[in-house]
Amino acid sequence: MEIPYKLQTLPIEKVFKDPIHNDIQVEHQVILDLINAKEFQRLRRIKQLGTSSFTFHGGEHSRFSHSLGVYEITRRICDIFARNFSIEKDPVHGWNDDERLVALCAALLHDVGHGPYSHTFESIFGTNHEQFTVDIITSPFTEIYQILNKVEDGFPQKVASVITKQYPNKQVVQMISSQIDADRMDYLLRDAYFTGTEYGTFDLTRILRVIRPYNNGICFTTNGMHAVEDYIVSRYQMYMQVYFHPVSRGMEVVLDHLLKYAGKLYQDSPAFFERTSPCLVPFFEKNETLEDYLKLDDNVLTSYFLVWSDHPDETLSDLAQRFLNRKPLKSVKFVAEQDEPLIEEMKQLIEKIGYDAEVYTAINTSFDLPYDFYRPDSVSSRTQIELMEYDGTLIELSQQSSLVRALAGEIHGDERFYFPKEMLTTEDNLFSDIYQQFQRYIRNGKINKHN
Amino acid sequence: MEIPYKLQTLPIEKVFKDPIHNDIQVEHQVILDLINAKEFQRLRRIKQLGTSSFTFHGGEHSRFSHSLGVYEITRRICDIFARNFSIEKDPVHGWNDDERLVALCAALLHDVGHGPYSHTFESIFGTNHEQFTVDIITSPFTEIYQILNKVEDGFPQKVASVITKQYPNKQVVQMISSQIDADRMDYLLRDAYFTGTEYGTFDLTRILRVIRPYNNGICFTTNGMHAVEDYIVSRYQMYMQVYFHPVSRGMEVVLDHLLKYAGKLYQDSPAFFERTSPCLVPFFEKNETLEDYLKLDDNVLTSYFLVWSDHPDETLSDLAQRFLNRKPLKSVKFVAEQDEPLIEEMKQLIEKIGYDAEVYTAINTSFDLPYDFYRPDSVSSRTQIELMEYDGTLIELSQQSSLVRALAGEIHGDERFYFPKEMLTTEDNLFSDIYQQFQRYIRNGKINKHN
Amino acid sequence: MEIPYKLQTLPIEKVFKDPIHNDIQVEHQVILDLINAKEFQRLRRIKQLGTSSFTFHGGEHSRFSHSLGVYEITRRICDIFARNFSIEKDPVHGWNDDERLVALCAALLHDVGHGPYSHTFESIFGTNHEQFTVDIITSPFTEIYQILNKVEDGFPQKVASVITKQYPNKQVVQMISSQIDADRMDYLLRDAYFTGTEYGTFDLTRILRVIRPYNNGICFTTNGMHAVEDYIVSRYQMYMQVYFHPVSRGMEVVLDHLLKYAGKLYQDSPAFFERTSPCLVPFFEKNETLEDYLKLDDNVLTSYFLVWSDHPDETLSDLAQRFLNRKPLKSVKFVAEQDEPLIEEMKQLIEKIGYDAEVYTAINTSFDLPYDFYRPDSVSSRTQIELMEYDGTLIELSQQSSLVRALAGEIHGDERFYFPKEMLTTEDNLFSDIYQQFQRYIRNGKINKHN
Amino acid sequence: MEIPYKLQTLPIEKVFKDPIHNDIQVEHQVILDLINAKEFQRLRRIKQLGTSSFTFHGGEHSRFSHSLGVYEITRRICDIFARNFSIEKDPVHGWNDDERLVALCAALLHDVGHGPYSHTFESIFGTNHEQFTVDIITSPFTEIYQILNKVEDGFPQKVASVITKQYPNKQVVQMISSQIDADRMDYLLRDAYFTGTEYGTFDLTRILRVIRPYNNGICFTTNGMHAVEDYIVSRYQMYMQVYFHPVSRGMEVVLDHLLKYAGKLYQDSPAFFERTSPCLVPFFEKNETLEDYLKLDDNVLTSYFLVWSDHPDETLSDLAQRFLNRKPLKSVKFVAEQDEPLIEEMKQLIEKIGYDAEVYTAINTSFDLPYDFYRPDSVSSRTQIELMEYDGTLIELSQQSSLVRALAGEIHGDERFYFPKEMLTTEDNLFSDIYQQFQRYIRNGKINKHN
Repeated sequence: MEIPYKLQTLPIEKVFKDPIHNDIQVEHQVILDLINAKEFQRLRRIKQLGTSSFTFHGGEHSRFSHSLGVYEITRRICDIFARNFSIEKDPVHGWNDDERLVALCAALLHDVGHGPYSHTFESIFGTNHEQFTVDIITSPFTEIYQILNKVEDGFPQKVASVITKQYPNKQVVQMISSQIDADRMDYLLRDAYFTGTEYGTFDLTRILRVIRPYNNGICFTTNGMHAVEDYIVSRYQMYMQVYFHPVSRGMEVVLDHLLKYAGKLYQDSPAFFERTSPCLVPFFEKNETLEDYLKLDDNVLTSYFLVWSDHPDETLSDLAQRFLNRKPLKSVKFVAEQDEPLIEEMKQLIEKIGYDAEVYTAINTSFDLPYDFYRPDSVSSRTQIELMEYDGTLIELSQQSSLVRALAGEIHGDERFYFPKEMLTTEDNLFSDIYQQFQRYIRNGKINKHN
Repeated sequence: MEIPYKLQTLPIEKVFKDPIHNDIQVEHQVILDLINAKEFQRLRRIKQLGTSSFTFHGGEHSRFSHSLGVYEITRRICDIFARNFSIEKDPVHGWNDDERLVALCAALLHDVGHGPYSHTFESIFGTNHEQFTVDIITSPFTEIYQILNKVEDGFPQKVASVITKQYPNKQVVQMISSQIDADRMDYLLRDAYFTGTEYGTFDLTRILRVIRPYNNGICFTTNGMHAVEDYIVSRYQMYMQVYFHPVSRGMEVVLDHLLKYAGKLYQDSPAFFERTSPCLVPFFEKNETLEDYLKLDDNVLTSYFLVWSDHPDETLSDLAQRFLNRKPLKSVKFVAEQDEPLIEEMKQLIEKIGYDAEVYTAINTSFDLPYDFYRPDSVSSRTQIELMEYDGTLIELSQQSSLVRALAGEIHGDERFYFPKEMLTTEDNLFSDIYQQFQRYIRNGKINKHN
Repeated sequence: MEIPYKLQTLPIEKVFKDPIHNDIQVEHQVILDLINAKEFQRLRRIKQLGTSSFTFHGGEHSRFSHSLGVYEITRRICDIFARNFSIEKDPVHGWNDDERLVALCAALLHDVGHGPYSHTFESIFGTNHEQFTVDIITSPFTEIYQILNKVEDGFPQKVASVITKQYPNKQVVQMISSQIDADRMDYLLRDAYFTGTEYGTFDLTRILRVIRPYNNGICFTTNGMHAVEDYIVSRYQMYMQVYFHPVSRGMEVVLDHLLKYAGKLYQDSPAFFERTSPCLVPFFEKNETLEDYLKLDDNVLTSYFLVWSDHPDETLSDLAQRFLNRKPLKSVKFVAEQDEPLIEEMKQLIEKIGYDAEVYTAINTSFDLPYDFYRPDSVSSRTQIELMEYDGTLIELSQQSSLVRALAGEIHGDERFYFPKEMLTTEDNLFSDIYQQFQRYIRNGKINKHN
Repeated sequence: MEIPYKLQTLPIEKVFKDPIHNDIQVEHQVILDLINAKEFQRLRRIKQLGTSSFTFHGGEHSRFSHSLGVYEITRRICDIFARNFSIEKDPVHGWNDDERLVALCAALLHDVGHGPYSHTFESIFGTNHEQFTVDIITSPFTEIYQILNKVEDGFPQKVASVITKQYPNKQVVQMISSQIDADRMDYLLRDAYFTGTEYGTFDLTRILRVIRPYNNGICFTTNGMHAVEDYIVSRYQMYMQVYFHPVSRGMEVVLDHLLKYAGKLYQDSPAFFERTSPCLVPFFEKNETLEDYLKLDDNVLTSYFLVWSDHPDETLSDLAQRFLNRKPLKSVKFVAEQDEPLIEEMKQLIEKIGYDAEVYTAINTSFDLPYDFYRPDSVSSRTQIELMEYDGTLIELSQQSSLVRALAGEIHGDERFYFPKEMLTTEDNLFSDIYQQFQRYIRNGKINKHN
């Protein structure tokens, strides 16, 4: 008599050596099969940090390793919940270990719909990686779907509903997606490790020791408040120091302009792109399918850029070369409305020396909300972090922590105006006058009203 | 009056955040310019560990970060030599700090000629990354050459001669290339860090404390012997556990067969490759130039494999898919001559179930000599590691260390026979008999004479 | 012709292996001699963290290693200042490297006056470790003094004036004593390492990269703001999670009561203490000299407690045993004035079961100000942390950082009421009624008004 | 109905924060009670590394933290064995989880009989820490005994028999005491961490992944051979570089001579010691009891040395001061028989300048056997390390590993002759001639035949 697929476990757990979690342990045949699925292996070819590795050269890791990490943290939470807080012990707030497999699958697959340089790519082509994640999980032709469907009828949809937060068990949903979830915890630790920054470190072991299920989600015991605080601050620091680094964004705007410019050029002369860059054509045409999307990865895009860098159109080749050879645009901070007239003046100076300001300047805005309490009327309200007192009372985190209160609800980040590096030249040459004029607009890294 | 280029230093050193060395410090304008050169930036697109990241998923770092690391270790050695062991203090054995710039450039550029999956690629196409390194440094059209040539006439050739070990100052040569050099020290530490293994760690700080110049090279004080031993053992362990991992080699043989098969197919139908894989054509035609070579990187190869995976030739598409989706061939150890007749029998069984043994089986041999003392009559004799006594006497390392003696001159590694995973099936099916027959040839992971 | 003592350097720097800074490098003969002085070696016998190692068992390191660490950080700052920001380059704001030796000596010796369990000891005996530091440095009979005085006449006084912040060069003073100084930076990193907590980690390398001298002290470049923020938060977290841990304080109150009780007993029966605990007698008598003080260390106190634990006075022996065998008093948080009547009621219950409330209960208050800007009219105003803009403007840290603003000026910590563990018994026994009554005063770890 | 004591578990596991294992988890009430027993708490007052912290200042950790670590590693092995290799799955080779509690108790208590500076102390006073361990566990008056005896009748004897290796279940015995056991694994990692050396690190996670029970003990799967090799080499390196460091041994000989000299002085004038050093008297008298032994710790000894350092006997006070103020004797290597006549000549020179050679010179021998296979006829034969093939065959480690073969059976270490530092003086003074004569006996750190 055969063991049903969903219950098949490996005789000894299979282990993936991981620098963050040491060992990633796989116990279920289902999980091993999902890892080996081609849509999941494809994540090896998509960098986790996009253009950040141009600033932090160690940050070259892929979404593949991050996805394994999210799985592993989720697995550890399930272990702790099953051991100490099972539904058998506490029928109201306890954890039902029958939810383990759906939680593990959702954790592993939560990013499977990511594509190359998602952030930029999506803003240009109007794609949505979360929707693709759902599609990959629920489209019958994918290997992922076929594996999940062997578990039981409707299981793919169940997993997808965790991703879309519609799954009825909120403990499962919040493990994978909330303001302090396995996803965020893994990427902070992982990105900190690979970039070699230390801001992202927080005490995961301690967080796992104070995490608790309750009837409507997950929370943290009140004596773990400082550990949670530390996580919130780490998150804030990683955004400020790594994710929003001005140089990485200087590469992002190059990428953005490169793809946009290629799109425009395609309208005029599609033949070149059809021949050399076939996988992008459906996106230029805005008629892409899931299959088209699955053909893309960092390698494909980059290899196209290599071709474009030899294109006779000078702007296309210049932008491609800037991206490949890491020539970011430079930047200054500015204050939204107030400085905009000055930016217009600066653009005129840039055009004077021969640059097309539309291509060679950019505005880039990076803002993050490190933590927020629940605001029912906000556009996308967040699940707040709850602390549990000894007697079971729940208190929202920022009520208890002045540190979190300082960050809560306050948006951090900045707005930057990007322009060609040349404008900062100080040596004598033909355009010295214009350069000097331009530089008078800048003081202490900001646009300066009183130039 | 302008400062000559070779003496131009940055007002404050520029720093690259690095997870291994914490900070990589750049003081010379020349070094900063070399890092920004496009041939050097290209190293970002070439993985340091090739197929190893299929086994150790963290090992996705590039040759770019390794090259910076080798530069940094060299810089630190120069600092120590200049502070404590200058030629002013010791005219016979001391370090001449005028050699610093050539040492730093050679350290930074020592791997600039690497291409994608060098090991496999070179064995198929007969290319040689070391020759390409020299070519990139000395060909007038490269950015690298142009920067180096601004330092002084003949400087590119000087740097190249360090790479080829012909540079007269052996201290410089051995810093960058000897049995314990900045190159090996960086890659052991770096590969260990990113893969998350700990075998490659040794105490770099202590090595740097006991390193000394002498008139014909570099050596280590005798009280540093155990630190050097530890390095040798780490090297051995990284080879045994990471670089020679059977699964990575199972991917390497897939890649090897894929490229070879494509080469054969090209002879029959070049049109497909000319259209979809133009950058490989010069290599298929064996008429590649340096410019052709510089167009290659991991992205280009991988994006070609993506195209090939849809090719109507089933073997080509199958091999490409195996590589992309990580389906390694499986393997057993064997003893060279003794087991070869058995391998022939095993191949016949493999053919019986329909596989072309030439494509789907392989022999892979990975051997390393962790350390060797000087053997004047050996084919490529190595510079031995010398320990310096308090009175200046030099003693060869393996004379002092029984641990090193155990590894010296002894080749470690193994020979493996690779075959399709299917052959290990234990479930009942049509071919069960053949599978069982096949499996009787294997015992404890080795080919078994007495099956 | 002999080299003057102050200029004598070691031929090769001497190195102390350190887990935090890897290598601690000593270049001056003066520093090596100071380390070997008996008053400095005595720091090996005084734990850095006092009773904290009862909670964090790894935190058993001594003030000796911390003092070396403070020296090392100061040495690195001097190196950076001398290399990049010398007074030769910038006569107004630059660093004068002639100050190096006084800075290094002050850094090394800043804690040399610490005694066993300083915090508790000082509060009971009215001693002051900072005054003892000055005394050790300036009293002609100490080895420390004799070494310093060989440097030049008045040098001991110079070093002492850095400790008392009266030294005219404020760069030197602030390196060693300010809100972000070598002392705090070392102890946060060191205490975090040894206790195994991760809250104390911040990026020292980055802090050292953004530190700058200016004419009236030290500051940090504005682009280093987040690194400084991270340090402030780490400091806050170490206070909240390690230094103020309720269990360590539960041991501290035991120690406090033990020493106080011994002092009282001494008044009645000095003979026992004169015979068994001679080194404490001058402190009981309040006529201690520097020589008496230098005889004390953790070993002496603890060995006395071992004797006391066999004393016929039951309270003395009980308190000594509680300290030696780690039996902390338990605690609840309370709100200062509001809860005091309730505490009185709780004490009565404690007395009912036979405990002397004066000995077996305690109030312990631990508060810290993580950061403060300059308040000229406050009792002990602090030097604020300044950020330097590109154009040299200085801005006070909390003006720029909302995170620091949240912590600035706000006192963190809590007040706790300590009592015997027995009061929390839940099992049935003779006193169950009293215990239950007592427990009704407590809810969620706090004193509860509405019991 | 009450749960029997042996089955009482904590509702949520209690956790001790540990820098090596991150969390040490306690699940059984028995274990928590043992940790709180006064004989166990006493281990906080005994340094793990004795005089090594005079060389590696970070190595100030106690036997308390090591004992917790050994417990934790054992607990993890039990978890793995219970999950994957239970006796239910494999009745011949499997692990019987009923053995868990005895294994955990033995692991926790294996060092409970250690005293201050055990190595030196035992050689002088003829005590034996292993015997004391057994006595503490089995003497009815100890808290440890009383706790163990509550588990079941005869349980203390059972635990003691694991320590003496007579326990019938060899899996339990070898977990705690064999050539690769929880004890050695913890101390290598712990000592490496605290001293800041990296030689002791090996991949514990991987070792735990390849460890297996078999019917007569524990073994390691053959594919874990390199991990085991790495452990053996780490062990060798820690002995060579940390445990046998010549300076630590230079302090050890001072301690040895100090205690011996005090013992001699006691014979003549016991009154001083009876008054000031009562706890040592039973040892001087060779009539110590277990209770006497339990009164000793590092604090007691050191506080006695502080008293002795003021004693009118110059030799006693000088030796005590040398120990307290870290003034090690210096040393040279020598070759046993061959160099002994030279040592006699050197001693005469030492006596010439006024030192008593018996007190101020010493021979110190430190040798270790990093690994040995089983030699039935050797005095204390060791359990060899076995590797298990896929088919269950066991192979002794050094059969497979040339690295281990190089270390196996070969004794490493050295013999050193210790003498006063003064003998190495190079400056001109009264005794210059004698010093120079003495120094001619030394070359490259060894005694030199041809002086």
